[in-house]
Amino acid sequence: MRFPNPLEPGAHIRVVSPASPARPDQTQKGVETLQQAGYGVSFGRFVYESDGYLAGTDEQRAADLAEAFEDPEVDAVFCSRGGYGCARLLNRLDLDRMAAAEKVFCGFSDVTTLHLALNRRGLVTFHTPMLLTLSVDRPGWVVDSLLACLAGRDPLTAAGATGQSVVGGRARGLLTGGCLCLLCDSIGTPDALDARDKIVLIEDVDEPPHRVDAMLTHLIHAGVLDGVQGIVVGEMTRTDESPDHAIGAWPWRRIVEDRLAPLNVPMVMGFPFGHVHAPVSLPLGATVELDADAGSLRLLEAPCVAG
Amino acid sequence: MRFPNPLEPGAHIRVVSPASPARPDQTQKGVETLQQAGYGVSFGRFVYESDGYLAGTDEQRAADLAEAFEDPEVDAVFCSRGGYGCARLLNRLDLDRMAAAEKVFCGFSDVTTLHLALNRRGLVTFHTPMLLTLSVDRPGWVVDSLLACLAGRDPLTAAGATGQSVVGGRARGLLTGGCLCLLCDSIGTPDALDARDKIVLIEDVDEPPHRVDAMLTHLIHAGVLDGVQGIVVGEMTRTDESPDHAIGAWPWRRIVEDRLAPLNVPMVMGFPFGHVHAPVSLPLGATVELDADAGSLRLLEAPCVAG
Repeated sequence: MRFPNPLEPGAHIRVVSPASPARPDQTQKGVETLQQAGYGVSFGRFVYESDGYLAGTDEQRAADLAEAFEDPEVDAVFCSRGGYGCARLLNRLDLDRMAAAEKVFCGFSDVTTLHLALNRRGLVTFHTPMLLTLSVDRPGWVVDSLLACLAGRDPLTAAGATGQSVVGGRARGLLTGGCLCLLCDSIGTPDALDARDKIVLIEDVDEPPHRVDAMLTHLIHAGVLDGVQGIVVGEMTRTDESPDHAIGAWPWRRIVEDRLAPLNVPMVMGFPFGHVHAPVSLPLGATVELDADAGSLRLLEAPCVAG
Repeated sequence: MRFPNPLEPGAHIRVVSPASPARPDQTQKGVETLQQAGYGVSFGRFVYESDGYLAGTDEQRAADLAEAFEDPEVDAVFCSRGGYGCARLLNRLDLDRMAAAEKVFCGFSDVTTLHLALNRRGLVTFHTPMLLTLSVDRPGWVVDSLLACLAGRDPLTAAGATGQSVVGGRARGLLTGGCLCLLCDSIGTPDALDARDKIVLIEDVDEPPHRVDAMLTHLIHAGVLDGVQGIVVGEMTRTDESPDHAIGAWPWRRIVEDRLAPLNVPMVMGFPFGHVHAPVSLPLGATVELDADAGSLRLLEAPCVAG
């Protein structure tokens, strides 16, 4: 794996919208957070475009991504929000070239699709809050963890994040995964999740309970969890609270345990990343150690390497 | 492909619940419809079990299916409802043995998963209303079409069903497909949709617009539509009416056209099957001809063959 260069004070962050539309009033506070940290912020030409659930046409969203990775003045590429749209860009992007630029790339949720594609091409990328996330009040350590990651320091030290043990034991591997429905949407494609020898992150939001079951079952039946070394489940945010339980419900923690505990690898759940109120930042593609007895995840490599 | 034996007057239909729970009051009218058509109806031992979104344990639901296919007194296996649960049964069923029994098998929605598995093993199965569907008032030709299919007659003659042309032309092939989210859940598994040389049915219900886009994009990226001869889209029922458009919406017909028209094979949409109020019954695995100029589908083989 190749690590991006750490961001120095004054580094230049380019904001892009590869998925759903963001409005300036939804992103303003996030922009200020990055600026207050000492970074310069610029915007893709089409960052505030909107067409239904897409932040502009596929051509526009792909162009902003390509320009951000190619512009030598840009040090990091930061997504404004998720939603949906990254999958539509995969065959319009020169992903090899993007990965070779070795820039910091940040996002989560729908951006899972781009993380999988860039990680597969050897680039370590960052599972972090986005501008929309940062524009809602969060505990201070959410920003501390993000800024640590951007600067190449350990993003977990600041947070002291832990999850609850489901299957005990310790495991090591490269970190992969992200938002469950995007992991499932990758199955059978050239940029599919491949969890062999890895530690897998899994979380989602707003899914009915039976869909969480269906998606975890899909991962298993498709064999993409074969050889997985450890599993770090976040939260299935707003799953138990969904009113749409016409066909009945199990609590999501029961579903996760029912589907994943039989894999019998070290596993925690409730680890704070993704759609929760207070997520840590995590480098995808870096080597981590999961201690499922303690519920903790430890980074064994710095998230950035100057070079 | 092997066709099931047609149902004679007095034939014995076994009702099973392989997916979500059904209550007797939700199925009563459907049972009466089958009885009034001259069939005997019996029930799986666990047909009214309930555990969250599942109609009993995986063991119970699998046992009812296995017994229905093995019992020499049973002529047809009819699902009470969909919801979710069939995928959990795949590795608990002797699907080869079930297919070899050459019985009429009826259902849709979540039952798409079992159709794909049985069709792959050479059995023609029926995409039909279920007991819950039949327990709501429907136009008379919905029942006429179902009963025609069960008796081995053409289920489309009674209905005169048509869709709207999206891409013109004519195509022939075996009929496959069903509910979109289950087609996607099959990708990368041993029982995946394989549309090569086939005519594919696609419909769904209660999906947010962006998920319809994501799922169609998934089918394309995974290559499971490679070599498809024609596409028959039903409705994306309650998709445009969903209140959950936080990230914006396109009308589902625009999404279908945007994603599938570039495949440039004969295609209609709005063909009445699946979750619409008045669905026709269709034999999966039988040879059909799609006339996408006229918007019509023609069955080239009887749905059952006595033998």
